[in-house]
Order: sequence, then structure tokens, then C-alpha cells
Amino acid sequence: MDLHPALEPLAPLVGTWEGAGEGEYPTIKNFDYIEEISFTNIGKPFLEYRQRTWNAENALMHVETGYLRVPAPDTVEFVLALPTGQVELCEGRLEVAKDEIRLFLEGRILNTSTAKQVDATSRSYALLGDALKTSFDMAAVNHPLQRHLTSNLSRAEQSSERITSVP
Amino acid sequence: MDLHPALEPLAPLVGTWEGAGEGEYPTIKNFDYIEEISFTNIGKPFLEYRQRTWNAENALMHVETGYLRVPAPDTVEFVLALPTGQVELCEGRLEVAKDEIRLFLEGRILNTSTAKQVDATSRSYALLGDALKTSFDMAAVNHPLQRHLTSNLSRAEQSSERITSVP
Repeated sequence: MDLHPALEPLAPLVGTWEGAGEGEYPTIKNFDYIEEISFTNIGKPFLEYRQRTWNAENALMHVETGYLRVPAPDTVEFVLALPTGQVELCEGRLEVAKDEIRLFLEGRILNTSTAKQVDATSRSYALLGDALKTSFDMAAVNHPLQRHLTSNLSRAEQSSERITSVP
Repeated sequence: MDLHPALEPLAPLVGTWEGAGEGEYPTIKNFDYIEEISFTNIGKPFLEYRQRTWNAENALMHVETGYLRVPAPDTVEFVLALPTGQVELCEGRLEVAKDEIRLFLEGRILNTSTAKQVDATSRSYALLGDALKTSFDMAAVNHPLQRHLTSNLSRAEQSSERITSVP
């Protein structure tokens, strides 16, 4: 299936990515995790995004889902739903150079009335050759915006079932 | 996989649903569509939600994705990402009676700067026996909250691939 022309700069990002990550925040102990994310072309002017993380015992931790689009050259929009009771609307910058794709996104949040309050986020995705580095900063529960997650991913088999199947 | 106890009232909703829908809005011509939605248990205190619609020529129209949870008895939260540049945070009421499950949700919206502006939504899901009726009201592009979509769905084969596979 052809990629929509607007998504052409993101073509190297399409597929499934997996690897290890580290989490930190003032309110919790540092932790490690395994992450798998996918950006899927469904023939529309956006990519479907799904993410899952697991702990060392292979227990499912976090999931999130959404869509990524390129409304203008050098501009990206990333809309996300989080089962912790947030929606996250990210807008930002797309930088494409030889063998490098970088996304820098600032997120606005709505929280459900029962959720732990998240006030703002910042995400980056850097695809350098075949390595995808992600970072996620968060202002939450009255703490200022700061690093929460980083991960180092590499391309997985296209057929990976882990991201789509029920664990 | 066991359903989280908080989700027990939603147990009959778990699975894949498909059927026909109708759309209307002051700014567009009325239209028909085919819809498939799924609520999936992944062993967490929420259900994964995915939706896709197609026109009569089997061309993919809309998709959306998110999570549904029951933070307290009679209360539902539904967080959604929409590839049209919105995130939608819905909260509302769960009513469970013999053979009937009804969800009534009011949605708050964030729009990306390039999206057609949606100001508010209202969703309902009514499971009556094995028929799932959905409705979606929307205030958008300066029109007040009013009916946009209704659909009548029935339970599909658990193995339906349409919702998860790339078309």
C-alpha cells in the first residue's frame, strides 16, 4: 500500500520497533522496561501508532495508542490516548536530514477527574540509521516538566505479534 | 484471561461488533457507512477500543482508538485519539440492567492547530441483548451540539481481522 505523499519524510519510521527503556520521576523508584512500538501505514494521511511496555518478568505495564501526521513540511501532530485517564495532543517539529529523522513534540493534556494529574509533556523521537531513540518528559502531580522515560529501540520483524496480540 | 473486577459490568461488551451506520451534519451531505468496533480485554483495568468505518465501495473512512474504564460503579471514562487532529476525553454514566448496558458520555476536546475545530461531543452505547446501538453528537465548526452519527451493530466473529489488519 502506497504511503500518502505527506508522510514520505516519515517512511523510514514505518514498522515495528523494540528495545529497552529506563524510567525515573521524583515520586517513584527508577525502573527498567521493555518497549515495543509500531507506526503503521493504512493508506491514509496519518500513521497508526501503538505502544506497549513490559517489566523484566514480562508483565504488561503501560500501553498507549494514537495517530501521527505531517500537516505541513517540518511540522508533526501526534494525538494520543492513555489508559491512565489522559488524552495528549502533541504538536511540533520534524527535522529530516541524511539518515536522520527527528521529531520534537510538546503535549497538551486533558485528565479525567479520577486520573493522577499530568499537566504537560514533551516527546522526542530520533531515528538514526536503524536505531530509534525516544524520550518522554512530563510535568505531573505538581512537579515541573522533567525526564520520565528514555528508550533505545531497533527495528523488529515486520511480523511481530507482540504489539497487536492480547498478551 | 480474567477480566479485571472493575470491568465486570462491561463483560458483555467485550468482543468485536459490526454493522451499518448513518451520518449527517449541517455542513455535509447525509451518508451511510459500515462500522466495526472492538473492545478488547488485555488483563488490565481498562478495555482497548478500536473503530473503523468504510463506505459502500469498501474504502476506509474514519478510524479511532482509545481506552474505556470504570473508575467507580456507574461511572465510565473513555479516552480517545482521532486522526482528524483531535483528542477526546469522555466521562459519564454507566447503567446496567438485566440484558441492558448503557453508556452516556460527554466529551471534552483538544484540537491541533490545523484541524477542523470540534468543540464538544456526546456519545452513547446501548447494548440490548446482542445488539449494540451507538450514537455520536458533535458541536463543530461553529454549529451547536447535534446528532452526527448513529449505528446498529451486532456481534461479529471473535476472529474478525478487519479491525486489526491493514486494509
